[in-house]
Amino acid sequence: MPISIADVIDAHERIKPHIHCTPMLQSSQLNKLLGCELVFKADNMQKVGAFKARGACNAVFSMDQDSLSRGVVTHSSGNHGAALAWAAAMRKTPCTVVMPDNAPQAKKDAVISYGATVVFCEPTMTAREATVATLMEKDGASLVHPYDDDLIIAGQGTAALETITQLEQPIDILMAPVGGGGLLGGSALVIKQSLGFESTQVIGAEPEMANDAWQGFNSGVRVAKFVPNTIADGLRGTVGIRNFEIITEHVDNILLTSEARIVEAMKLIWTRLKIIVEPSAAVPVAAIMDQPDQFQGRRIAIILSGGNLDLDHLPW
Amino acid sequence: MPISIADVIDAHERIKPHIHCTPMLQSSQLNKLLGCELVFKADNMQKVGAFKARGACNAVFSMDQDSLSRGVVTHSSGNHGAALAWAAAMRKTPCTVVMPDNAPQAKKDAVISYGATVVFCEPTMTAREATVATLMEKDGASLVHPYDDDLIIAGQGTAALETITQLEQPIDILMAPVGGGGLLGGSALVIKQSLGFESTQVIGAEPEMANDAWQGFNSGVRVAKFVPNTIADGLRGTVGIRNFEIITEHVDNILLTSEARIVEAMKLIWTRLKIIVEPSAAVPVAAIMDQPDQFQGRRIAIILSGGNLDLDHLPW
Repeated sequence: MPISIADVIDAHERIKPHIHCTPMLQSSQLNKLLGCELVFKADNMQKVGAFKARGACNAVFSMDQDSLSRGVVTHSSGNHGAALAWAAAMRKTPCTVVMPDNAPQAKKDAVISYGATVVFCEPTMTAREATVATLMEKDGASLVHPYDDDLIIAGQGTAALETITQLEQPIDILMAPVGGGGLLGGSALVIKQSLGFESTQVIGAEPEMANDAWQGFNSGVRVAKFVPNTIADGLRGTVGIRNFEIITEHVDNILLTSEARIVEAMKLIWTRLKIIVEPSAAVPVAAIMDQPDQFQGRRIAIILSGGNLDLDHLPW
Repeated sequence: MPISIADVIDAHERIKPHIHCTPMLQSSQLNKLLGCELVFKADNMQKVGAFKARGACNAVFSMDQDSLSRGVVTHSSGNHGAALAWAAAMRKTPCTVVMPDNAPQAKKDAVISYGATVVFCEPTMTAREATVATLMEKDGASLVHPYDDDLIIAGQGTAALETITQLEQPIDILMAPVGGGGLLGGSALVIKQSLGFESTQVIGAEPEMANDAWQGFNSGVRVAKFVPNTIADGLRGTVGIRNFEIITEHVDNILLTSEARIVEAMKLIWTRLKIIVEPSAAVPVAAIMDQPDQFQGRRIAIILSGGNLDLDHLPW
């Protein structure tokens, strides 16, 4: 049975003692500049600095004692790895994270600092999955997939669930970046199954240089193999099977944006909201900057996915 | 009659339709690292990116129509200038800001973007005051002093007033940076005149390279002339007469910290809280990092003063 908003509500009950209910932020200067009204769900301020804490926490706190004793394993370009390490430490279960060797240093450091074992691999989905399979066989550890997993999708959906309770006015659009599709899928479930949001559009935003979700959304066939090449390191995963189903059913559109625009949007968010967001989190604002006419006068909630990056190597 | 918490409450009633009630932020990683429990009042997310919006708004919204028609003038290393320009624009009164020529470009740009006229001068208090006097004579404009003004002190105190209503648990200490003493003075008034905070200490933090408040606090004689040389550009003012009186009466201690530690603290806040703070805002955390033993196990509220700086010229 496909998951629904009920699973997201269950997830929220399970994880809310452990996560932050992150604030909603606005900037009138930014609204003036872009010609629309933006409200930001600041999940860059979530535990481990990313929404990924939600899904990982839901997965690990759903495990029984027997599985916990054998540990958890995952592959991640960074934030899910840190999130799983953080959640695993709370339940005292061993955690191994397979990371592409081009992941940002700040993300590698974070995974290690939360107590996980890190194994590096080539930066392709095939290499990530093969390395994980080897580790699962060796230790009997459970895979906590970074996105293609019902518990993960339900967990990530809690960001949108909190958002709709925090909103002071209705929204026309909810936007989220799309990498593997956990956040966008979970968010779409929440919006499309909530009373009062019947006319709210759900729009994903993706880098042109990692446009597998956009391709699949438009052709109807999921792109399973893809080598992304984007500064938005959190969006380098390929949309999962479960995620693709949910996105196809519930998402209204996916927009693409360029690398230069992502950097511009990131700097604009830093300057106007006074918060640190990583490139991936800036992708929805970049998409709005690309086609401001389409968003003119609309009220838009944007989920800021994370704030982890190397402060010594900024892209400007 | 010296001002009291009643003036701060009046100020809050006057300005709250125009300002943000900024969020309180925490990081368990940061607490673990420093061995104490820190709650941050994020006034870097205030209008114009600094607590200065509070005082300027209180001053301008206290003016009568006759004074408004002649305009306002001030001197400021940046944030008060932007705040006054912002507040003046809301009341459609002309605004001139005298700025030291070494103010950060981002702050110069902000003052201009809010519609004020900028006049540059040498980076000394004497030059700032002389230039303002000339302008006042010429236009009949009212001086809105950046800190040595009862309405400004009362306005800045509203950050602490909001803080005590937002706290979920009592605090042992409230800390704020000290430049001219508007924020520290206003905060001290609020804490020392609020029921339930009898045992809360108020501590100022100041760069060693701009230690005029510390000198005056310890000698009992205000330092009136001083050439500061600190990266914390918001703290380059010299403590005002009214401010010095309040600080001497109500503040428990002033701590000094080094330039290197300020940069280290700033980067730590960026990394752990995922927010942009300017060097001045990091001074209290820097002081805690200098002597962690003194703060071990204490619960401390820190007012983050601002988040305006040149993102193209970071100090690391």
